[in-house]
Amino acid sequence: MELWYTEKQTKNVGITCKVKGTLYSKRSQYQNINVIDTYQFGTMLVLDGAVQTTLVDEYIYHEMITHVPLNTHKNPKNVLVIGGGDGGAIREILKHKSVERAVLVEIDRHVVEASKQFLPQISCALTDSKCQVLIEDGIEYIKNNKGIYDVIIVDSTDPVGPAANLFSKDFYISIYEALKDDGIFVAQTESPFYNQDLIKRVFSDVKEVFPITQLYCAPIPTYPSGYWSFTMGSKKYHPLEVQVGKVANLDTRYYNAQIHKASFILPNFVKTLLKDGKIND
Amino acid sequence: MELWYTEKQTKNVGITCKVKGTLYSKRSQYQNINVIDTYQFGTMLVLDGAVQTTLVDEYIYHEMITHVPLNTHKNPKNVLVIGGGDGGAIREILKHKSVERAVLVEIDRHVVEASKQFLPQISCALTDSKCQVLIEDGIEYIKNNKGIYDVIIVDSTDPVGPAANLFSKDFYISIYEALKDDGIFVAQTESPFYNQDLIKRVFSDVKEVFPITQLYCAPIPTYPSGYWSFTMGSKKYHPLEVQVGKVANLDTRYYNAQIHKASFILPNFVKTLLKDGKIND
Repeated sequence: MELWYTEKQTKNVGITCKVKGTLYSKRSQYQNINVIDTYQFGTMLVLDGAVQTTLVDEYIYHEMITHVPLNTHKNPKNVLVIGGGDGGAIREILKHKSVERAVLVEIDRHVVEASKQFLPQISCALTDSKCQVLIEDGIEYIKNNKGIYDVIIVDSTDPVGPAANLFSKDFYISIYEALKDDGIFVAQTESPFYNQDLIKRVFSDVKEVFPITQLYCAPIPTYPSGYWSFTMGSKKYHPLEVQVGKVANLDTRYYNAQIHKASFILPNFVKTLLKDGKIND
Repeated sequence: MELWYTEKQTKNVGITCKVKGTLYSKRSQYQNINVIDTYQFGTMLVLDGAVQTTLVDEYIYHEMITHVPLNTHKNPKNVLVIGGGDGGAIREILKHKSVERAVLVEIDRHVVEASKQFLPQISCALTDSKCQVLIEDGIEYIKNNKGIYDVIIVDSTDPVGPAANLFSKDFYISIYEALKDDGIFVAQTESPFYNQDLIKRVFSDVKEVFPITQLYCAPIPTYPSGYWSFTMGSKKYHPLEVQVGKVANLDTRYYNAQIHKASFILPNFVKTLLKDGKIND
């Protein structure tokens, strides 16, 4: 018998993967958590029916959500990840020697536990002495921590269920206040093909809060449309002013200094989406 | 009843699309041709079970396979497309005012006919006075036409069935000979995630034939992995030496002058794939 797992990425299109078996299945207080073993992508973490990360392609997402802001910042020491209970962002953050403290605030302890058990290649840095894991609501946490972070990364699920409020303007204001005077914020902001209204709204909201707002993209095979966006809000540093020669010599499989800059070059349809035409101009 | 069409893009992963109905279905001498109407991507051309083009995302592929070589060339007048019976590449080529003649050599007349009937938005330029459509084997055609083209585009199906020989070194040598002394060739060369052996082999073969060989990529939601590669062989012009300010002001939805250059910036895993590490360095 062949088992196939299908995620409907929109109501009209899906990705379907041949499955060896289910490794973990739990209904937590917040969501359905499944870890499955797939032939194409290896171990796969699925939350509420949406692929979050897979052993085979996770590096692209985790490298791009971390190294772009951390190399844009001149000297990141304190870094916060909201969501990202799999630990992949923390693993990449701790590749930066300047980082003294990486805090993970994940609402669902079962995501952390499942990742530690079934995705050790991704979660490996969660036990690092520089990493602190807090099982808390990121929205509450951020309200109570002002002016202390150099970089804040919102590594959330889709904007439904537990993550919905992580895509609100009020939350971006709280993030702004939790950052130091030269702080940088990045959030995953879905597919430029399938989630255009969301991208427009988030970009507009972040732009009202941060003086420098930029969108960048990367290909990720297991995410809807295979093409993903990240929105950056920065108080001082511009991501395109990064000195290519100064970019840390990181052990990466997707990211490099040229990719850092190229990821901000947007196709016409994405420029149009962001309306004012001033992106990258 | 819900109808879904699923393409197994590899033996272990597929894309599945909700379908309104089948518009056309034919077994030709060369392949199975289907045109279906999908909710997500509109009208979709499927050859031997593989999505070739859809109304919603075709612009990316057709813009990138044409404008990159045509803007790299200083003055393209005579352009050849091998395959590409849907006409999308021809439509984009004829946006360049320098082009005097665009020849399409497609082996399967039923692909051209189905595209004219069901994909008029894509095939519209096939009746242009500058376009000549030849129903012939591209491999034979190219052997009999030496030194006459400025740009040759190989817009083929996957490297199985009727297109297999379009991915051979002998064919690249024939293309080299069919080009003028400053000619440029581009072929679609599959997914950097799923078809790494093919990309390596083609890149190596093209490099043995052309003095300048470069790979570039673009996101295409309906193609396997959502991320696609194109391999360029050029006799004289380097694609990164294109003057951004001189790039024709084309009516495009994906391509622009900055995307032209950014598409040649490769992630580390693709650079590694091409082995010698000299790509983009």
